[in-house]
Amino acid sequence: MPTAFPDDSVGLVTPQVARFSEPLPLACGRSLASYELVYETYGQLNSTASNAVLICHALSGHHHAAGFHSEADRKPGWWDSAIGPGKPIDTRRFFVVALNNLGGCNGSTGPGSTDPVTGKPFGATFPVLTVEDWVHSQARLADRLGIKQWAAVVGGSLGGMQALQWAISYPDRLRHCVAIASAPKLSAQNIAFNEVARQAILSDPEFHGGDFQAEGVIPKRGLMLARMVGHITYLSDDSMGEKFGRELKSDQLAYDFHSVAFQVESYLRYQGEEFSGRFDANTYLLMTKALDYFDPAAAHGDDLAKTLSGVTADFCIMSFTTDWRFSPARSREIVDALMAARKSVSYLEIDAPQGHDAFLIPIPRYLQAFARYMNRIAI
Amino acid sequence: MPTAFPDDSVGLVTPQVARFSEPLPLACGRSLASYELVYETYGQLNSTASNAVLICHALSGHHHAAGFHSEADRKPGWWDSAIGPGKPIDTRRFFVVALNNLGGCNGSTGPGSTDPVTGKPFGATFPVLTVEDWVHSQARLADRLGIKQWAAVVGGSLGGMQALQWAISYPDRLRHCVAIASAPKLSAQNIAFNEVARQAILSDPEFHGGDFQAEGVIPKRGLMLARMVGHITYLSDDSMGEKFGRELKSDQLAYDFHSVAFQVESYLRYQGEEFSGRFDANTYLLMTKALDYFDPAAAHGDDLAKTLSGVTADFCIMSFTTDWRFSPARSREIVDALMAARKSVSYLEIDAPQGHDAFLIPIPRYLQAFARYMNRIAI
Repeated sequence: MPTAFPDDSVGLVTPQVARFSEPLPLACGRSLASYELVYETYGQLNSTASNAVLICHALSGHHHAAGFHSEADRKPGWWDSAIGPGKPIDTRRFFVVALNNLGGCNGSTGPGSTDPVTGKPFGATFPVLTVEDWVHSQARLADRLGIKQWAAVVGGSLGGMQALQWAISYPDRLRHCVAIASAPKLSAQNIAFNEVARQAILSDPEFHGGDFQAEGVIPKRGLMLARMVGHITYLSDDSMGEKFGRELKSDQLAYDFHSVAFQVESYLRYQGEEFSGRFDANTYLLMTKALDYFDPAAAHGDDLAKTLSGVTADFCIMSFTTDWRFSPARSREIVDALMAARKSVSYLEIDAPQGHDAFLIPIPRYLQAFARYMNRIAI
Repeated sequence: MPTAFPDDSVGLVTPQVARFSEPLPLACGRSLASYELVYETYGQLNSTASNAVLICHALSGHHHAAGFHSEADRKPGWWDSAIGPGKPIDTRRFFVVALNNLGGCNGSTGPGSTDPVTGKPFGATFPVLTVEDWVHSQARLADRLGIKQWAAVVGGSLGGMQALQWAISYPDRLRHCVAIASAPKLSAQNIAFNEVARQAILSDPEFHGGDFQAEGVIPKRGLMLARMVGHITYLSDDSMGEKFGRELKSDQLAYDFHSVAFQVESYLRYQGEEFSGRFDANTYLLMTKALDYFDPAAAHGDDLAKTLSGVTADFCIMSFTTDWRFSPARSREIVDALMAARKSVSYLEIDAPQGHDAFLIPIPRYLQAFARYMNRIAI
């Protein structure tokens, strides 16, 4: 039967759910008694389970990284450009696992899920999670799937932080760590932008201290503002200029504050509104806090090389020239520390105008280098 | 009688008010029937009125640029580092005029003023103003003060745009134009940040479509968010890092969203809250819109050199290396256009870590260069 899917697509995929009933202790001191993780897999696990690759998602990502959920889907998964037959993460060789992180809003247990103890949505009572907590939950998913050691753990942005944390927390459980457009910790400016986003949500009267579900409302305004400010940091000044310039929506300037004067305003409002209709406000708070608190070197006197002294994976670090959210300098901090710790690391700085978003975009030079690294991984 | 004021201060100053009853036609097509401008002056106007300098303020500035309103004042005016005896704008030589722009919230007629027609606050009915409108209103103030030609019009950021507009709109009425940390028009990214700030205010339920005064409330949350996002763009990534780093407010990480974990969060919240208590939300909308719409070259086929072909003033353009709101590249656009138009221009790029805020900070190299330029102005 002919399908509408391109030859280099993983095609039709179906999310699966793994249920865990052993309590998960968390960095905050609390624990989750039970939880579910929704995930997808692409390709086939080989007989020795040596070809498994874990994909870790960024702030607003999820388990649907590649392929289509139905023939009617207009868009494939969020990293379809990197995952599929013949693509950098080649599903003819690799068995790829992508999950929605704990605390998410795309199927895994999160603030919007029902708390089995109260029978009501967790809302504000859902625990604050850290990158380490995610990695521990992902390790349990690996156990469930019979994967003792990942061929590679791969992620961009916040996903790259999870890949780094894997190499630190479970050195024996991955052979390669691929961290793209990432950082060893947030800068004060990064935290500041996250704080604006959080305040936008927290100050929305319809947030109701996190229990908006019980009130039957959604803090749309707060989520919209959070997404708008986030979106500005994902694009470079140049790429915004190229994309929108100062192009006006109409020939006539509107002398009021509600009309949309410039294309860039219309784009941002659309992005904000669309996002506020599909994302959970508590999950947004949780994801930004996990970003803020990621700082593996803090426990080692801020010495990143010392922090990485026990890692055994080979590293591939990539960055993009115009990324000002996690600039190449931030990736080079990781590379420098790995070199100081005498670890194996490949580093590539890709010349790309798209800013932080570049890691999601099929830039030929980037995909080529990514593919070369992945192809050299023995399975 | 001994005073508490430093020797290089203009000392005690008293704001004055100029009332105008001739209608002011505006770019939006409407006009203001009458209006007031609050202003301060420092130094003495000489007999030929050849030593007058106009100070144009930026987004949240006002007429109180130097000196003190009382001996109890803890802080002097916002540009006290640049204005006073022996300072770059030397009040022993110059007669300095600083005003609060029309539409402001510090004494000049603005959205918070009473509309004489209705007897109620203008609120949402106050007209949207442009940089050109401001310059026309400032020209009337010059007439009132008997100043036919300014020795110099000086401003930073949005103030620099007014200085540029003066040179374009009234070439015969100024001999020098000093534009610091400015730009010939906003970039798409600049507009995007303004749009987030506006949406934060517009979407605050206590904004009431701009008529919050009638409701007896203030859209504090929106103003707070607007100021927070603005503030991030005033500082450089490096200066935020130096100022706050990842310094924690307490030794223990707080696993909730309301606690302030990092110093930078506490700083931003303080800035936002303080601002929301003293600034008018409609004025904020109006100022950001004036920024967005400033684009003098638009009427000349986007040819800035052509736009500047009629100017006769000498120009001094200054920028700061780490300013990413209006980067040195934006100042160089002005310099390039002036050179292409065969105009007299001095350009200085100051090495400073403080970002856009640098123009308000007493950086020795900056004040020295500023003083040298001002000292060569004949009076």
